[in-house]
Amino acid sequence: MSDPQAIAKQFTTFYYGALDTNPSELGPVYRPTSMLSREGNLHQGVTAILAELGPTDPSQKVKHHVSTVDAQPSSTSVPNIIVSVTGLLLIGDSSNPLNFSQVFHLISEGGSYYVLNDIFRLNLG
Amino acid sequence: MSDPQAIAKQFTTFYYGALDTNPSELGPVYRPTSMLSREGNLHQGVTAILAELGPTDPSQKVKHHVSTVDAQPSSTSVPNIIVSVTGLLLIGDSSNPLNFSQVFHLISEGGSYYVLNDIFRLNLG
Repeated sequence: MSDPQAIAKQFTTFYYGALDTNPSELGPVYRPTSMLSREGNLHQGVTAILAELGPTDPSQKVKHHVSTVDAQPSSTSVPNIIVSVTGLLLIGDSSNPLNFSQVFHLISEGGSYYVLNDIFRLNLG
Repeated sequence: MSDPQAIAKQFTTFYYGALDTNPSELGPVYRPTSMLSREGNLHQGVTAILAELGPTDPSQKVKHHVSTVDAQPSSTSVPNIIVSVTGLLLIGDSSNPLNFSQVFHLISEGGSYYVLNDIFRLNLG
């Protein structure tokens, strides 16, 4: 499969499913060089990123609802992909979802992909 | 200057300033390989991208207010940069700004940068 949009859809379905249920499953998508920015705070490497992503406090249960997924090849020579996501974040029993935007840079490696760049922001206006 | 965050700030200040006043000034930041996705519609190359960006109808005057800018190096070998922006779009005299998110992939070239990837979405929730 080499269609960036199809790969992006498949990736985001897996990513947010794991993030909302068992974030430790996301370990294999990161590498020591991977970076995660959340609300402007930078975390680098698998251990630091997984510590930031979870486990979640069950009383603060978070669910990500994906609204849009856009993908473009990020290189003219290798099949890397930039993925831009917008969506809604539902926290606990709150009925006021928050807009979020997230960017992933997927790097091709042996027929699969890992996340080199991950930037998350609430879009509070 | 090699700090990604500083380059991203400088770039976005120029970009949105030009976009809101004279979009044709943005020609030099794109190349024939550049891609712009706006609300899911893909435009490739300088001519197609500039046609999409402007000129704007003066009665529909648009202003971009940047809320956050995050940057990360997008490669471990060359000084390319991914920039993620969130902000507010003000259209005409409307007092209801819209959340937007935009991603740029800046490619290093001869001491400067061009935009290979540009993905824009209104974040409507």
